[in-house]
Amino acid sequence: MSGAAWSDAGEVEVLAFDVFGTVVDWHGSIVREMAQLHPQVDGDAFALAWRQGYKPAMARVRSGELGWTLIDDLHRMILDELLPRFSLEHLDEAQRHHLNRVWHRLDPWPEAVEALQRLKRRYILCSLSNGNLGLLTRMAKHAGLPWDCVLSAEVFRAYKPDPATYLGVARVFDLPPQKVMLVAAHHDDLAGARACGLRTAYIERPLENGAARPKDVSLQPGNDLHSRDLAALADVLGC
Amino acid sequence: MSGAAWSDAGEVEVLAFDVFGTVVDWHGSIVREMAQLHPQVDGDAFALAWRQGYKPAMARVRSGELGWTLIDDLHRMILDELLPRFSLEHLDEAQRHHLNRVWHRLDPWPEAVEALQRLKRRYILCSLSNGNLGLLTRMAKHAGLPWDCVLSAEVFRAYKPDPATYLGVARVFDLPPQKVMLVAAHHDDLAGARACGLRTAYIERPLENGAARPKDVSLQPGNDLHSRDLAALADVLGC
Repeated sequence: MSGAAWSDAGEVEVLAFDVFGTVVDWHGSIVREMAQLHPQVDGDAFALAWRQGYKPAMARVRSGELGWTLIDDLHRMILDELLPRFSLEHLDEAQRHHLNRVWHRLDPWPEAVEALQRLKRRYILCSLSNGNLGLLTRMAKHAGLPWDCVLSAEVFRAYKPDPATYLGVARVFDLPPQKVMLVAAHHDDLAGARACGLRTAYIERPLENGAARPKDVSLQPGNDLHSRDLAALADVLGC
Repeated sequence: MSGAAWSDAGEVEVLAFDVFGTVVDWHGSIVREMAQLHPQVDGDAFALAWRQGYKPAMARVRSGELGWTLIDDLHRMILDELLPRFSLEHLDEAQRHHLNRVWHRLDPWPEAVEALQRLKRRYILCSLSNGNLGLLTRMAKHAGLPWDCVLSAEVFRAYKPDPATYLGVARVFDLPPQKVMLVAAHHDDLAGARACGLRTAYIERPLENGAARPKDVSLQPGNDLHSRDLAALADVLGC
């Protein structure tokens, strides 16, 4: 599973990447930016609370309580609810807008950009994120992420793990699902892709939620590949 | 209009590019490929006939006669109708599929890649083409087109010049239309964008239809900019 090359590497044409947590470090980036913008706030708790609002917000869209909503707008709804808890209710519209755009300014994990450049020589690289197209494009420009194509829940009007997203990538590239591999640091995402027939690669990101809350990144069955990071994935794919 | 810098260059954030004819040379690329694959065929006439089938095919979708159809599939329908006229009805499925993919292998105009790299330093660059996402992504990889984001009629489920496409770009990037500029070699496309409030830049491509059929590229009123090619556009935008 690691070290030696993977024998099916030549069967895959497209690598689709989860982004938040897998390619970029949302927790560390938000902590760093809060330390500059609002140093009196506990940036670690703030970043976690914001991120924790994300799945419940998507669930409100899925249930029909909210219509189709871009992640930029969900992030803003969560932020507005969150500010009083952190004594930031005085922030004006321009400050809230700027803070909400922190998700466009997330920094990549240290090895990510160089590893993506290696992988790009052999594969078509696309994002497959619940983030909206504008967010993902501006993030890629900020972070230097060399996507061949920015794909998003916005294109398919469904959030992961809806099968429409995984099968949508295969349809966009006119490929059978087994020629597409989802690369992600989250088992629920990978399970959704696997159920649709995609290949899957798990990426360890033990510090995704911050140094105080290391994630269990032990091997779990079912994925084609399990790599420490994107450089190790490039190694095992022979790039 | 040319030479001096354009005073509104700083107001624009996104450059959206028409692709076929504006960024890549469909006629020359098809002629070159036909000379290799099927040298007995008049490549110039073949390329023109294929391209001429494109607008009527989109009209069949717009009228509702056909459901929503990707350009790859429209290209294939036109190709299948065309082959007997050029004594190529004997081509088998694999040969037809390969030939249809010539649209994924179009070459850029000579100055295009370097000019896009210059423009990319200052602006968000996206495609806005009736070509589908898979076609545009594979073309970008083949030709080295450094898009920040591949946008297509496929995302908006409408072909240009439907307002949903031009306004869709502004919506994706959460911008008012006047902060988006369409760059195109076709006046009908630019007129559609202008009617939606976008800025417009006309690019001369006198040989788009081949050396035997030079286009009238004289100045027409209404566009913000009129540039000889993409390098001249980069000059006037101060990139």
